[in-house]
Amino acid sequence: MMNGESLIEGLKSILKKNQLLLKSDVLSRFSHIWKTDQKLQAIAVALPKTTKEVSEIIKLCNKHNQQIIVHGGLTNLVGGTETKKNQLVISLEKMNSIEEIDSKSKTITVQAGAIVENIINAAEEKNLLLPLNFGAKGSAQIGGAVSVNAGGLRVFRFGMTRQMVLGIEVVLPDGTIISSLKKIIKDNSGYDLKQLFIGSEGTLGIVTRVVLRLQEAPKSRSSAFVALNSYDNVVNLLKYLESNLSGSLSGFELIWNRTYKAMTESELIKPLGDNYNYYVFIESMGSEPKADYQLLEYHIEESLKKDIIEDGVMAKTSKELQQIWQIREDVAILASKARYDQHFDISLPVSKIGDVINSIIKKLEKVKHVKTIFPFGHVADGNIHFIIGRDDDSDLVIDQINSIVYSPLKKFNGSLSAEHGIGLHKKGYLETTRSKEEIKLMEKLKTMFDPKNILNPGRIVF
Amino acid sequence: MMNGESLIEGLKSILKKNQLLLKSDVLSRFSHIWKTDQKLQAIAVALPKTTKEVSEIIKLCNKHNQQIIVHGGLTNLVGGTETKKNQLVISLEKMNSIEEIDSKSKTITVQAGAIVENIINAAEEKNLLLPLNFGAKGSAQIGGAVSVNAGGLRVFRFGMTRQMVLGIEVVLPDGTIISSLKKIIKDNSGYDLKQLFIGSEGTLGIVTRVVLRLQEAPKSRSSAFVALNSYDNVVNLLKYLESNLSGSLSGFELIWNRTYKAMTESELIKPLGDNYNYYVFIESMGSEPKADYQLLEYHIEESLKKDIIEDGVMAKTSKELQQIWQIREDVAILASKARYDQHFDISLPVSKIGDVINSIIKKLEKVKHVKTIFPFGHVADGNIHFIIGRDDDSDLVIDQINSIVYSPLKKFNGSLSAEHGIGLHKKGYLETTRSKEEIKLMEKLKTMFDPKNILNPGRIVF
Repeated sequence: MMNGESLIEGLKSILKKNQLLLKSDVLSRFSHIWKTDQKLQAIAVALPKTTKEVSEIIKLCNKHNQQIIVHGGLTNLVGGTETKKNQLVISLEKMNSIEEIDSKSKTITVQAGAIVENIINAAEEKNLLLPLNFGAKGSAQIGGAVSVNAGGLRVFRFGMTRQMVLGIEVVLPDGTIISSLKKIIKDNSGYDLKQLFIGSEGTLGIVTRVVLRLQEAPKSRSSAFVALNSYDNVVNLLKYLESNLSGSLSGFELIWNRTYKAMTESELIKPLGDNYNYYVFIESMGSEPKADYQLLEYHIEESLKKDIIEDGVMAKTSKELQQIWQIREDVAILASKARYDQHFDISLPVSKIGDVINSIIKKLEKVKHVKTIFPFGHVADGNIHFIIGRDDDSDLVIDQINSIVYSPLKKFNGSLSAEHGIGLHKKGYLETTRSKEEIKLMEKLKTMFDPKNILNPGRIVF
Repeated sequence: MMNGESLIEGLKSILKKNQLLLKSDVLSRFSHIWKTDQKLQAIAVALPKTTKEVSEIIKLCNKHNQQIIVHGGLTNLVGGTETKKNQLVISLEKMNSIEEIDSKSKTITVQAGAIVENIINAAEEKNLLLPLNFGAKGSAQIGGAVSVNAGGLRVFRFGMTRQMVLGIEVVLPDGTIISSLKKIIKDNSGYDLKQLFIGSEGTLGIVTRVVLRLQEAPKSRSSAFVALNSYDNVVNLLKYLESNLSGSLSGFELIWNRTYKAMTESELIKPLGDNYNYYVFIESMGSEPKADYQLLEYHIEESLKKDIIEDGVMAKTSKELQQIWQIREDVAILASKARYDQHFDISLPVSKIGDVINSIIKKLEKVKHVKTIFPFGHVADGNIHFIIGRDDDSDLVIDQINSIVYSPLKKFNGSLSAEHGIGLHKKGYLETTRSKEEIKLMEKLKTMFDPKNILNPGRIVF
């Protein structure tokens, strides 16, 4: 019996018939939700229903030196779910239960395949908030969000996914199940092992269940949209609002003039003139709708008097609030402005962003095939996204753009990936952000956990 | 030349004369600030001034199979700084610089030996807050606080030390320097290595520098003190206040009736009668002193009307605020009530605390040598401290008490150590909290980082 055949036989003994997809059933799937026209290449797709089944599959793969690619909601932005024809896919989609909501301890226990938005909604029914809020939440599975330490629009106040994970269950590359489904916020009982699995992109283990920390749902949401002319004043405004909206400031998103123009030139509303250098979306969430609105309004007026901002509007209705935030959220518009587009997700110290982004823009403008340059992002977190449009798709141009955007990172101790991870696509640039000693230590860890390199190979290190 | 002599020769070639303490200079020191009458036992005390010196010392120790115990502020509560006469002490006390405060990025960069309170004060001068707030902050060094992931009184709102560490520099047991002094909140560029060093009690590396995240300093601090009769209402009050003081609730500390009586029977003030089952200290921090006070007062009155609380008082002046919090903070009083005392620091899901603590108390009351039982703690974090007084210091009685307090942990997925760590003292009970698979993985990690087991040996695993 060939190796492949004997692997399939083994899988058949672990899984029921409808839990193992072969041949045409494999080809009917895909490896990314944006690439539904490209048929999935893989030996088979295993659909475990229990942690024990995940463990047995991994043990079998270990015996056969079989590489595994883990699939979740297929929304990964760095190639994390790309699959080769000699690899086995384990998809967690059948492990999608929301197992328990504990309103008193404010926790929710879920299987890895549960859709993030379903978890948010289940919490909301109990007046609780899971503060994860990112674009792909309607498709992304929580196991993936934990594995990549997803960020999003509320990191500034509530932290990244890492801060929400209290307990974890994970299957190691040798099949060992590490189960620590704790509901507790504080646990200094030795090494905090869960931290190793959060953000390591499934290379050290497969997350099968998690306990997430929830918050009491805020009762108010107020928003303002303001225009500024200097980056220094963006920082001044952030400091002023943090200091005066203590604890309730939940969003502070920046877009540059060129991005604002592009977002509003077609159908979207245009709340302020397009002659300012910077625009900031502000959100506060609290417990007193009227008072919170008035407090934000008062401080926007004060910022105007103090010449921190040039102009500003409050979102007076929930419709207005939605329309204003659409200018920040509908970034797909920016990707459509050129033939090809390239996305970035860099981190920098907040104090350095103004100058560094200006200098990147200047350099990009000199690149012949660059047609559009749109910076925007979570400035309070130090995280700026870039969507760069070009009319040429050659590796040469792609590398040239990468080099320009990544070149200031080392000097300012920034990161080439604030949120999206490294995956396959950014591996070649890891040294812009991490030292040789760090990369060597990552490699040692990967080798210790997965000596045969069977789990999500090629991601991050090797 | 004997091994010891050749080690000392090597140390002399790395360090200046006043950086290496030998013989009587060693004996003039101690291993814990509470044990100043017990002379330090150690081969020598090395006082490096630079990260490079730390690295060279470790490389030398590696060559000589020399065990190292790391000293900081000597406030560790689980024996972390206890030293044997054949061990070398590395104390970080000369590496105590506050290197940079970046007001725009809201970060502070410090060497490991800087005293926590000095860092807090340096931040305060720039109107910034380092939200670390624990009893030993006047002596504890930040390297130790990071190594044990210190908690304290503001974890509920601001997180433990882990959440404040943005960047870290650490020397591995083989002398490799891992330097990642980043000021950025978001960094998903591969494995988040700093998480491995935070809370691992110096067993995987010596922290030499850190970058900490600061907050804008709140402008108001309001407090109330309330009495309740059921644990369910403690949870109801917490939920009610979280929901209605969204973002500004910063403290919610519980003491039981027996603890309140003991704290107030002598000199301290007694703001409420001692006939209630539970007492809660509430703190909110915001940006509008008057409005924040009124909002807290209003919701205390509402809680009274809703029969959640039985009675309550506001702290009307800062003196009253201080006096009320003294009842929570002066817990040394509790330790003085019996001949010997035993301290606990357990975590449980918030929903389980009432019943579990009652059941522990009932069992402890049946133990002949137990004289006093005082539970109190950070209930919003699920973290309860116990100070248990006894008239017998035998291992039998100590073990009996340990067994009673730790026995419910497994069932409810709690932790034997919420804040203090494992060190030497709690190692024997690690299995109450962590599975065999977890402990095995910790051992593998320790072996990978420190194959000769020279760095802080005996702590956590082996």
